[in-house]
Amino acid sequence: MSIRSINLLTRQTIPGSLISIIGINNNFHNRYIYFSFKHPHQSFKYHHLSSASLSINFSISKNVHYKQQPYNIGNKVHFVQNHQLRKFFATKTNNKMSTNYSVDNRGALNSLDYRIYFKNDSNGKIISPWHDIPLFADKSAKQYNMVVEIPRWTNEKMEIATAEPMTPIKQDVKKGALRYVKNVFPHKGYIWNYGAFPQTWENPNHIDQGTKAKGDNDPIDVIEIGSRIAKRGDVIPVKILGTIALIDEGETDWKIITIDTRDELAGQMNNVDDVEKLLPGLLRATVEWFRIYKIPDGKPANKFAFNGEAKDREFAEKVVEETHQYWREMMENKAGEHQLDLKNITLGNSYTINDEQAKQFLETRPASNTVEPNPIADQVAIDKWHHVKLI
Amino acid sequence: MSIRSINLLTRQTIPGSLISIIGINNNFHNRYIYFSFKHPHQSFKYHHLSSASLSINFSISKNVHYKQQPYNIGNKVHFVQNHQLRKFFATKTNNKMSTNYSVDNRGALNSLDYRIYFKNDSNGKIISPWHDIPLFADKSAKQYNMVVEIPRWTNEKMEIATAEPMTPIKQDVKKGALRYVKNVFPHKGYIWNYGAFPQTWENPNHIDQGTKAKGDNDPIDVIEIGSRIAKRGDVIPVKILGTIALIDEGETDWKIITIDTRDELAGQMNNVDDVEKLLPGLLRATVEWFRIYKIPDGKPANKFAFNGEAKDREFAEKVVEETHQYWREMMENKAGEHQLDLKNITLGNSYTINDEQAKQFLETRPASNTVEPNPIADQVAIDKWHHVKLI
Repeated sequence: MSIRSINLLTRQTIPGSLISIIGINNNFHNRYIYFSFKHPHQSFKYHHLSSASLSINFSISKNVHYKQQPYNIGNKVHFVQNHQLRKFFATKTNNKMSTNYSVDNRGALNSLDYRIYFKNDSNGKIISPWHDIPLFADKSAKQYNMVVEIPRWTNEKMEIATAEPMTPIKQDVKKGALRYVKNVFPHKGYIWNYGAFPQTWENPNHIDQGTKAKGDNDPIDVIEIGSRIAKRGDVIPVKILGTIALIDEGETDWKIITIDTRDELAGQMNNVDDVEKLLPGLLRATVEWFRIYKIPDGKPANKFAFNGEAKDREFAEKVVEETHQYWREMMENKAGEHQLDLKNITLGNSYTINDEQAKQFLETRPASNTVEPNPIADQVAIDKWHHVKLI
Repeated sequence: MSIRSINLLTRQTIPGSLISIIGINNNFHNRYIYFSFKHPHQSFKYHHLSSASLSINFSISKNVHYKQQPYNIGNKVHFVQNHQLRKFFATKTNNKMSTNYSVDNRGALNSLDYRIYFKNDSNGKIISPWHDIPLFADKSAKQYNMVVEIPRWTNEKMEIATAEPMTPIKQDVKKGALRYVKNVFPHKGYIWNYGAFPQTWENPNHIDQGTKAKGDNDPIDVIEIGSRIAKRGDVIPVKILGTIALIDEGETDWKIITIDTRDELAGQMNNVDDVEKLLPGLLRATVEWFRIYKIPDGKPANKFAFNGEAKDREFAEKVVEETHQYWREMMENKAGEHQLDLKNITLGNSYTINDEQAKQFLETRPASNTVEPNPIADQVAIDKWHHVKLI
């Protein structure tokens, strides 16, 4: 079915509701449907018009205030308002695998207050993306859950706020201002989808045998090299291909190289050598990127353990397993001081709180779609392309 | 004055109107002010609150239908609706130079019908960006007018429709579908602002002495390497730095290398050697980009005259002067058959029409902000990163 015919079919007001559809996008096994709301709704039925003739009932909670969607369909616009809807459709129409999580955006977009909280789709409960999402999507198939913080080609330095209750994603702050990673020529923003593995911890009290440096006190970093530009807050199934060991101001900062298991190349990608074979130049660009990305901010070039050589899949899986073990020990109070927030709703340990308590942390902030977004302070500075000459 | 204080000053409803301001962006000498409209307006007054205490009156024509602005402030969102407003402010607050042109978007965004027409701000008349905008912004200072077709890091292959009346910008079409240039690793979309010089023509009846190939029947192509991401339809003042000669399927396709005269580096950029000095790697990347950008579409690598060496400023200015001369001859009916539309409103030649006739061509299409935008057919395909191995 061509988009044209989908469009013709759906560009109409559905009888009995005030919704119209402005776009459909098929990503892998997910079908994203973008809505234009004329009024806030409480609940309605929607009959899907595709050849699959899928019939779906769903309700929208009363406190979600829907506005007219922006015109740009695709990755460049933050579909804050209908993220839940998107995820809903993604879940329902995705018969291969579902990530089962969605996000709840709070605070004004582009403000210090902005947070992305996570929700379990099956029961609507607020969760910690760090502690409550399992490391494995499918352990026997060695599929891991990756929490996407930064979509490819974007600049906002978004990360799991490890010291905040329910560990939402927030934008890093430098000297009171939102942090944007510079564009370093020839690169534009981050050159992969970037994020973290849940239930892992780079223990700052442990000196790594390989890198001779201690952990950086964060969940382990993940880069996902698939073709799709992921969305902030996506939880995607990935397979591990290898790892490089950045040494960032004396701390070990593993970057685990992965690919979305749903990517068209995933079947042929089984180890780090396959990356160079199928995506020539990407590994070298990756090391270069990490080496130089802080130079425009006046920092020195970063260094790497193992001469910047990527380690293979088996090695990387062991590193992840080790950080998973450190996370477990931290959760069992065996890790000492660390100034992190360990609240969770699923683990049944001394940090577990109930659903209502978890929800209260989120409710300290208004829903992002009910408050005016902040203007971006200096778009020209974000767009600037920095040319770094190392030699 | 910091953005923060501007924001505090202006984020309020102006007495006597229904307008609120959601963002201010300073680009070079232009101040862009983004509005949130609650209702369509006919006319109102606005008192500017900055320290300059500028007072501006303006009116909005009745047939322009303003909608709530999208949230993203910056280059990623098409501010179709308030482009006239932006230009108005740009003109009024820009005391160094003004481009004096604005655009009028017609047809549904992302559709085959979409067009960007050009307007002279001083009298509101519809013009041809190819024929009615002078080649020189300031001849004595060797400043040229560049018409921006494709902003940096975007993929839409937009170009002046040379065979259509009033030569609006439209998206190129291949096999019935809108054309997007592929992302070729390590590049993202076009790596500079890309466009054309008005009042130039690469004569297909003339064999170039240097390249030994004939012209490609288009206005001459321009790349602008400044820091700012321009907007589609911007008319910006540039200085020429050099040129490379692409040979595209047997035709000479000059790419004139320029920089916005308002860029912070423009003062230090006086010839092609300065490009490598100040933006190391960019010239090599430029040649590489043109060499490989059509390979993912199944085409061979492009070739260059002069071994891909960039020619200097003087050479480039001569090439431009020559194409300006060919355009002039075409306008005087001395150029033979060419299947191009030469209608204009300012030149007083056999192709000159009156303002009302010019306006009628535009009015065959509805304003873009009154029709629903088309969904993008395949965003995943546009976002894909293609890895090309030449050796």
